[in-house]
Amino acid sequence: MPNKVKEAWKAGRAVVNGWLAIPDAFSAEMFSQAGWDSVTVDMQHGVQDYLSCVACFQGMQPHGVTPMVRVPWNEPGIVGKVLDAGAYGVICPMVNTEAEARALVQYAKYPPKGTRSNGPIRAGLYGEGGNYQKTANDEILVIPMIETQQALDNLEAILDVPGIDGIYVGPSDLGLSLGMAPKLDREEPEILKIYERLLNETSKRGIAAGLHNGTAGYAHRMVKMGFKLVTIANDVGLMVMAARAAVKEARGEGPGLPPPDTSKPANPKTGATSG
Amino acid sequence: MPNKVKEAWKAGRAVVNGWLAIPDAFSAEMFSQAGWDSVTVDMQHGVQDYLSCVACFQGMQPHGVTPMVRVPWNEPGIVGKVLDAGAYGVICPMVNTEAEARALVQYAKYPPKGTRSNGPIRAGLYGEGGNYQKTANDEILVIPMIETQQALDNLEAILDVPGIDGIYVGPSDLGLSLGMAPKLDREEPEILKIYERLLNETSKRGIAAGLHNGTAGYAHRMVKMGFKLVTIANDVGLMVMAARAAVKEARGEGPGLPPPDTSKPANPKTGATSG
Amino acid sequence: MPNKVKEAWKAGRAVVNGWLAIPDAFSAEMFSQAGWDSVTVDMQHGVQDYLSCVACFQGMQPHGVTPMVRVPWNEPGIVGKVLDAGAYGVICPMVNTEAEARALVQYAKYPPKGTRSNGPIRAGLYGEGGNYQKTANDEILVIPMIETQQALDNLEAILDVPGIDGIYVGPSDLGLSLGMAPKLDREEPEILKIYERLLNETSKRGIAAGLHNGTAGYAHRMVKMGFKLVTIANDVGLMVMAARAAVKEARGEGPGLPPPDTSKPANPKTGATSG
Amino acid sequence: MPNKVKEAWKAGRAVVNGWLAIPDAFSAEMFSQAGWDSVTVDMQHGVQDYLSCVACFQGMQPHGVTPMVRVPWNEPGIVGKVLDAGAYGVICPMVNTEAEARALVQYAKYPPKGTRSNGPIRAGLYGEGGNYQKTANDEILVIPMIETQQALDNLEAILDVPGIDGIYVGPSDLGLSLGMAPKLDREEPEILKIYERLLNETSKRGIAAGLHNGTAGYAHRMVKMGFKLVTIANDVGLMVMAARAAVKEARGEGPGLPPPDTSKPANPKTGATSG
Amino acid sequence: MPNKVKEAWKAGRAVVNGWLAIPDAFSAEMFSQAGWDSVTVDMQHGVQDYLSCVACFQGMQPHGVTPMVRVPWNEPGIVGKVLDAGAYGVICPMVNTEAEARALVQYAKYPPKGTRSNGPIRAGLYGEGGNYQKTANDEILVIPMIETQQALDNLEAILDVPGIDGIYVGPSDLGLSLGMAPKLDREEPEILKIYERLLNETSKRGIAAGLHNGTAGYAHRMVKMGFKLVTIANDVGLMVMAARAAVKEARGEGPGLPPPDTSKPANPKTGATSG
Amino acid sequence: MPNKVKEAWKAGRAVVNGWLAIPDAFSAEMFSQAGWDSVTVDMQHGVQDYLSCVACFQGMQPHGVTPMVRVPWNEPGIVGKVLDAGAYGVICPMVNTEAEARALVQYAKYPPKGTRSNGPIRAGLYGEGGNYQKTANDEILVIPMIETQQALDNLEAILDVPGIDGIYVGPSDLGLSLGMAPKLDREEPEILKIYERLLNETSKRGIAAGLHNGTAGYAHRMVKMGFKLVTIANDVGLMVMAARAAVKEARGEGPGLPPPDTSKPANPKTGATSG
Repeated sequence: MPNKVKEAWKAGRAVVNGWLAIPDAFSAEMFSQAGWDSVTVDMQHGVQDYLSCVACFQGMQPHGVTPMVRVPWNEPGIVGKVLDAGAYGVICPMVNTEAEARALVQYAKYPPKGTRSNGPIRAGLYGEGGNYQKTANDEILVIPMIETQQALDNLEAILDVPGIDGIYVGPSDLGLSLGMAPKLDREEPEILKIYERLLNETSKRGIAAGLHNGTAGYAHRMVKMGFKLVTIANDVGLMVMAARAAVKEARGEGPGLPPPDTSKPANPKTGATSG
Repeated sequence: MPNKVKEAWKAGRAVVNGWLAIPDAFSAEMFSQAGWDSVTVDMQHGVQDYLSCVACFQGMQPHGVTPMVRVPWNEPGIVGKVLDAGAYGVICPMVNTEAEARALVQYAKYPPKGTRSNGPIRAGLYGEGGNYQKTANDEILVIPMIETQQALDNLEAILDVPGIDGIYVGPSDLGLSLGMAPKLDREEPEILKIYERLLNETSKRGIAAGLHNGTAGYAHRMVKMGFKLVTIANDVGLMVMAARAAVKEARGEGPGLPPPDTSKPANPKTGATSG
Repeated sequence: MPNKVKEAWKAGRAVVNGWLAIPDAFSAEMFSQAGWDSVTVDMQHGVQDYLSCVACFQGMQPHGVTPMVRVPWNEPGIVGKVLDAGAYGVICPMVNTEAEARALVQYAKYPPKGTRSNGPIRAGLYGEGGNYQKTANDEILVIPMIETQQALDNLEAILDVPGIDGIYVGPSDLGLSLGMAPKLDREEPEILKIYERLLNETSKRGIAAGLHNGTAGYAHRMVKMGFKLVTIANDVGLMVMAARAAVKEARGEGPGLPPPDTSKPANPKTGATSG
Repeated sequence: MPNKVKEAWKAGRAVVNGWLAIPDAFSAEMFSQAGWDSVTVDMQHGVQDYLSCVACFQGMQPHGVTPMVRVPWNEPGIVGKVLDAGAYGVICPMVNTEAEARALVQYAKYPPKGTRSNGPIRAGLYGEGGNYQKTANDEILVIPMIETQQALDNLEAILDVPGIDGIYVGPSDLGLSLGMAPKLDREEPEILKIYERLLNETSKRGIAAGLHNGTAGYAHRMVKMGFKLVTIANDVGLMVMAARAAVKEARGEGPGLPPPDTSKPANPKTGATSG
Repeated sequence: MPNKVKEAWKAGRAVVNGWLAIPDAFSAEMFSQAGWDSVTVDMQHGVQDYLSCVACFQGMQPHGVTPMVRVPWNEPGIVGKVLDAGAYGVICPMVNTEAEARALVQYAKYPPKGTRSNGPIRAGLYGEGGNYQKTANDEILVIPMIETQQALDNLEAILDVPGIDGIYVGPSDLGLSLGMAPKLDREEPEILKIYERLLNETSKRGIAAGLHNGTAGYAHRMVKMGFKLVTIANDVGLMVMAARAAVKEARGEGPGLPPPDTSKPANPKTGATSG
Repeated sequence: MPNKVKEAWKAGRAVVNGWLAIPDAFSAEMFSQAGWDSVTVDMQHGVQDYLSCVACFQGMQPHGVTPMVRVPWNEPGIVGKVLDAGAYGVICPMVNTEAEARALVQYAKYPPKGTRSNGPIRAGLYGEGGNYQKTANDEILVIPMIETQQALDNLEAILDVPGIDGIYVGPSDLGLSLGMAPKLDREEPEILKIYERLLNETSKRGIAAGLHNGTAGYAHRMVKMGFKLVTIANDVGLMVMAARAAVKEARGEGPGLPPPDTSKPANPKTGATSG
């Protein structure tokens, strides 16, 4: 299976990325059919661990989305394990220095580029047997998160580390680090200026910038601004938002969601007709 | 904890019911905060079994929704187990005859009204210690599904069985049984006429009629028509619907969902700000 | 995804079927890459339940094997649940009478052919959205097990039940029922005569006969004899057999297994090079 | 329960070691009956985490194999946890320097030899109550992996660290580190020369050398060469190899595996007769 | 492993039986070291299902307790599955008629005594390979529960069914059936008279009577009265009782439990010293 | 939900703390109803990992106990994850230096006090939506363990680190570090003198000292001595102790536990009447 994120970036296109907090393969397999280019298991803030990540990957696999992981921390054990499990990309939180970025690349690449240990227990399932190790170093995306003042201070040095394929911005943490409220979809001019700098510096180096968003509308604006990977909320957040709107509408208290067409025979992909 | 469904029905109000197909306590606990009166674990068509039902109940419990179960079939073992787990109501598929309705009541009630075996391992957690067995026979709702021509033929006899608190309609199965397509939110005049008959016959006997719906708009219409319990799709269906709309909007291909207000500090209840 | 078993049978070919006793999606996904046409989750004697069946199906799905289930017993609840989970075929133990065969068909078919309830929560994933219910009645295989004297006594009546696609023979139970030892790969003339009768009667009706085997050599003979589906042991049995041979060979106590070619770069599909 | 690996090493015998990648207690309990001296849960490249390791240990325990773990990385938290779970030996990947070897020993030994924290929650189950802490420092094997050029450069210093009981060689990683392909069962003269050096240096110090192998035949040669612990592939690798051979033979495409004797009553230990 | 319950009964001794409601192998393995003769997984009212039963059996196995199961209901599928999992005895709720007792025996015995299907996937692990099927019909205990007026009415007929090894009394359900409160450790003369009748009738037939108890003191009295199997509460009940006493004593509000001797080095078997 | 531990400490009261080694939500929910002020999931020596911690928190939540965690080690990834899961306090083993104490505080606090990353996926459930981040830095307790000679040497420096709310003493490890046996409830004068020093130094700074105990009686003495948090054994230790006493009493070999009153209708909270 090709790395759709890498292909899109080569072609100059932005990818729309899903985000999994629910540790369940069934939820992941249904979510993965919603049109995402890639789906990322959030092992940092999601209710996820290594085995639930494997389960989510199993659920995703038939549905053509590129599997990625946000690891809980910049540590060699877990980076190796999620790559062995089949991740095509690693998003790593709180990479604040050149040394941390170099370490991340080391953990994610086989020798001679790094020190990853061989044993791609599930990863080989995606490719043709036997050549995984040849292509892994090229295909797997290494994406540090830029989300603190310290990371901004060290930005150029981080971006210059060989093996970095892109960056990912966490607006809540970035805000907290700058003394602002933790929120997404920010409009503060100083934040937008930072985004411009990130887009410039990544673009200059031929690498991509990604952003975590709260809403699809903001994500769309950010794609137009130049971000090459946009995530929208997460599985559970979208579910609760839709549920709230549905409850309100059923009570006659709000406009609700635009109705899907239920006049046709039940569509099993939404699971909506188990009645 | 009082049975909110029972209270609402006594007061003549309709309840809005959530439906769980995802076998995960975290997903259940977040979903349960969307405003539902009751949340039902679907052990028939959902990806649920007994232990996942217990986990979902554990996730729901702090959030004040009344827990119910749709059992996979009309069998004494599983009816007893879900009641012991803490269900306040049992929705049972394919109850087509008076005998089947009587059997269901037997399974769900302690002697002398039935043959339920004593051992409410989790059920006692909801109430005051020691008096569960005194109130269970009164508090727990027994709700057969009316979803075949045979059930319609036997409707009055089923509804007259002592201990029946209401009925639940599965429009897809009802349609299949009548030679129509399996779908929800139906507009065929003969179906709507059946709904009217069901509302009349239940209303006459002081019991309630519930309906499975695909959309909140239709559910709202049905509440106005007289249904006293309306379910809207399920957890995974709402999630996928919201995800599809979000992906489209992020790609600039559609209007998307009404944006939640993300200008405020991140709301942890939606899990939307793990960035 | 087409039903490979059905296609093979239409073309007059035999299928080689894998058998899962290990309740684990990873084990299932690796096992499913060994060349089987179909893989069956054994919920009767395997260490499997409904949720582990779902997990195994998730593991299998990308690898092109047709998923089937041996249900624990001839009961409507579990037959419906495994079909909703995505089974393309149901093997049902201990079908001894025409009435039991008719009941099994009822449980497995939507109206008007049967009484299956609508809600194919995962099953729709395999097909094109929306038309599952149209094709399910035709595509899903209903396969009673013939494994007792009583079933042999009622054979023609069982085989004549509309909707039966084939039979499956359990040689251990058949032997026990006839007063013989419980074993596979039998050579008793009276058993082989029974097999001939089964092949004749199924062949006459254009339906298929399957057999559980202990070894691949015997299975091959049975294919040549006319069986159209042969299972070889199960996942855990094959694993332990290979492990025993490997241990003996490593100790210099036996000839061991034919060595795979390990001179080539590690093949991740066997997981053999995690060193 | 005595540490069979330690006993064998004292007696100058080599041990044959199994390797678990499947995260399931049932699979582990069956695999453990194949004749292995010890069985190691692979938490680095296997689909294993801490709780699956505990489950595998529970499955193994009645069957007399010595339980060991390959930890995912050289970290105090996980080393302590697997020892508390009952591991009799810790194989640690990528120990490249004397300092790393010293750290590993520290994590694995109680004071005054190390800094392990007390709380052997399951470990005490294997021994006589109350004396676990007295014997743990002596009984538990500490086995760093030697699998990089850097480790070879520091070999003597690593081996001289007090508390090291042996080493374990990962041929794939060793090859990658030396610029060769990642594979097992290597025949390159420079690799075999390294193995000789490792055998000499460990032998000199009265400690043992272990090796990961792809086939039993190669493992047997390595035992004769002097290795004191040989692993053969892993559970899932052996299973898939046996399954492939079985499928081919059933199709009449290959010689297949040597047939087990199925003329006798079914042997429940292989699980092969669930028919 | 011999069936300790059967051995004790042959020797005229009573067995003390543990009861598992917590679906966890670790909890089961610790609980099994408390001195019980047998430990029963309660699949009816405990938070247990088939796979948790297997896990509990795995935890128990090294500790020499005889594993039994209370099945959720008198059904062939689940009776077969728990026997395959390794149960040495089946306690079945609500056996009220001779026909129900005959059915239970049928489900639990291989031909010619019954209709159990062959495939003892874990059960064979306990015995010597290959002879499980020979001894299973003799070794496995079939124990219907006598817990309703109807069962008392049919008592002799139930006890006369060949293959019944004993009975088990559920005092709460018996009380409910007789119009009394659901409780254990009963002192009502009419109940004690029923117990005497049960002891007489079982004793006459050379079979055993068992009883569920709330406290060890009452259980001891019942052993002296003639019961041959006494259960005391369950795992979670004992845990909560001890926890309540400990909390009270720590607060200076009560006498607490008799202190274990903690002056000695930590006993890992209680897990009490993880500090 | 307020932090009961913090409230008690402000009011000068000691808290009685439960300790969870069993990785099960049902066990946790029952244990949490025994009267504890707080319940701590032991991820270091308990059979617990991140997802079992989440499950235990879900079980505890309705029962009003303050949830805390002992993390396996002083690492940012896991500290962040358990706080996101809803822990109100973090007990961290083996904090031996000021630098380690500072690191712990950093991991546990949002900027500007620390470097915790934002994403309180479950933590927000406890509070009012939207203000979690405002109060988390104040409400969450940071509690290093003092359990080595080195920690005693650095005591004042550790206690002076801003953000430290208290300390927790592990008597077994402390003993091992001082060359004594690993046990709880110690009476050695030099240990008691250390406890006095700890109480003085913490009291001086207005922070609290906690202690792990084997028995409730010793815990009560320690409360009177000045400890502000006392843990008594753990869930599984209390269960096994009660089970042993019950077995002995049932066999007529010992006095047993003080009998609970079972003359009243069954109390479902203890799960003791599933008969």
